[in-house]
Amino acid sequence: MTDIEIIALTGGIGGCKLALGLQHIVRAERLACIVNTGDDFRHLGLHISPDLDTALYTLAGLNDPVQGWGRRDETWTFMRVLEELGAPTWFRLGDGDLGLHVERTRRLAAGESLTAVMDDVRQRYGVPTRLLPMTDAQVRTIVETDAGALEFQDYFVRRRAEPRVHRVRYDGADAATTTAGIDSAFASPSLRAIVLCPSNPLLSVDPLLAVPGLRARLRSRDVPLVAVCPLIAGQAVKGPTAKIFDELGLPRTPAAIAAHYGELLDGLVIDARDADWADRCGCATTVAQTLMQSLDDRVQLAHATLEFASRLRR
Amino acid sequence: MTDIEIIALTGGIGGCKLALGLQHIVRAERLACIVNTGDDFRHLGLHISPDLDTALYTLAGLNDPVQGWGRRDETWTFMRVLEELGAPTWFRLGDGDLGLHVERTRRLAAGESLTAVMDDVRQRYGVPTRLLPMTDAQVRTIVETDAGALEFQDYFVRRRAEPRVHRVRYDGADAATTTAGIDSAFASPSLRAIVLCPSNPLLSVDPLLAVPGLRARLRSRDVPLVAVCPLIAGQAVKGPTAKIFDELGLPRTPAAIAAHYGELLDGLVIDARDADWADRCGCATTVAQTLMQSLDDRVQLAHATLEFASRLRR
Repeated sequence: MTDIEIIALTGGIGGCKLALGLQHIVRAERLACIVNTGDDFRHLGLHISPDLDTALYTLAGLNDPVQGWGRRDETWTFMRVLEELGAPTWFRLGDGDLGLHVERTRRLAAGESLTAVMDDVRQRYGVPTRLLPMTDAQVRTIVETDAGALEFQDYFVRRRAEPRVHRVRYDGADAATTTAGIDSAFASPSLRAIVLCPSNPLLSVDPLLAVPGLRARLRSRDVPLVAVCPLIAGQAVKGPTAKIFDELGLPRTPAAIAAHYGELLDGLVIDARDADWADRCGCATTVAQTLMQSLDDRVQLAHATLEFASRLRR
Repeated sequence: MTDIEIIALTGGIGGCKLALGLQHIVRAERLACIVNTGDDFRHLGLHISPDLDTALYTLAGLNDPVQGWGRRDETWTFMRVLEELGAPTWFRLGDGDLGLHVERTRRLAAGESLTAVMDDVRQRYGVPTRLLPMTDAQVRTIVETDAGALEFQDYFVRRRAEPRVHRVRYDGADAATTTAGIDSAFASPSLRAIVLCPSNPLLSVDPLLAVPGLRARLRSRDVPLVAVCPLIAGQAVKGPTAKIFDELGLPRTPAAIAAHYGELLDGLVIDARDADWADRCGCATTVAQTLMQSLDDRVQLAHATLEFASRLRR
């Protein structure tokens, strides 16, 4: 991976939209996406990696464009039988999606690493982007709420992010190490920028930053790191970001996002609707159209982000 | 299970046809099917019980009437993805079928017995027949062939029963115990007959007989035991029975079937086409139409079998 030019750090749906834009403008095999695995969990005996799979399906063009998660042209016979059997059905698994979960679980049990399995799978699906789990170790995002300490999917899917959040922690992160693939991407002489995609800072990006080796590599980088603000006029495009910010007493502003990432950040891409925050973020900013509805929106934002990074010094 | 009137021992497709016929004429919850689990195996990390599932689907009216195995109205998205991923696809798993495998594997891993899971499942599907695995322990039918010692599904499905068979053994059977459900069925004061369904004697029935406790209960029974001959004019309706008999030097005759079961047998139901064997089997016989094409055929054969048993003394 000596040719990596851009490293993107991402969670699920929102972040992967930008990753797809980046994939369109960065040459094949020159983009590395390091993906949150704090949401990974074991369900029905299967290893499930929601963010990695959203990244895979999005970058392979296999994602369901309507519901946002899962595969397009999916069938649901498996879930219907689970219902008949009285099995847990709160986490929806399409029949095709299940193929990936079962085969990955089998290969992990046979001793392969998550990194190796995902690299093989993304190549089989013709994805030109390196898809890198943030670690091959187990990190579990735990959401401490009014309803107790909840595993991420329990909080996010089963309880629809309804419980009030007090704190988010990342169990196992302290002991988690990065992978050879990640180390190699950071060591690439071609590297020119690192992008924090517009994912939920607390639920999707912070787990990545909680892996000590990853945080150390970000800190010791010699290329600019830019983030795309996940809030537009105080609102998240999708998901509970705004609600959680309120619950934790964080202002829903670009300045709060910049403050959250602190010294890690060289620059922040903010939406045109937040243009009046441009000079009040404590770091360099650029104004762009950050709402990604079409593929063209994704590509344009990717262009704006990399162009912005190229203007920043490190 | 003090009300059990009939115990049927069965393997997969052929035997289950008669089991369905019996289910139509025995009152609800009065029929117990003890099913071969020597074919069970672990595939893709899942516990798969082919004969139990054929019994379940057949008795629930969910079986695919065309291919014989699996569920009707099945979808195959999961298998298509396994192919995309380069995963093993020699054992075909429909999306709905997979629901049972995944949920059963989960429940077994959580400490439930195979017996408990299957009893819950058959009740959920409204099956009035007690569906009893021959044991909750692991027994593995191993087919010793020209191509080496093969696990059953490897021999039967992957290699299409093509290798020449020298011997069949039942690993783990010696140490396997019966279940409380089986013991209770045999202890039923209402019991009036035991039926060996027309399954392959070596591949499907002998694994059952190899479980010491089951064999002992059959031997110490005080009701008649009748078998339905799985060969008609020397041919099996389906599957490799005839081929294996040839490979093992066994004549493909009702007399050879009777001799195979030996003293266990009180009577043998033979097909009209084998009527000339009626007096040459070394046990009581009755002649019936044993080819089961329609549901009516199944019911008629069940009637003939139980009527025959009722005429026998023990």
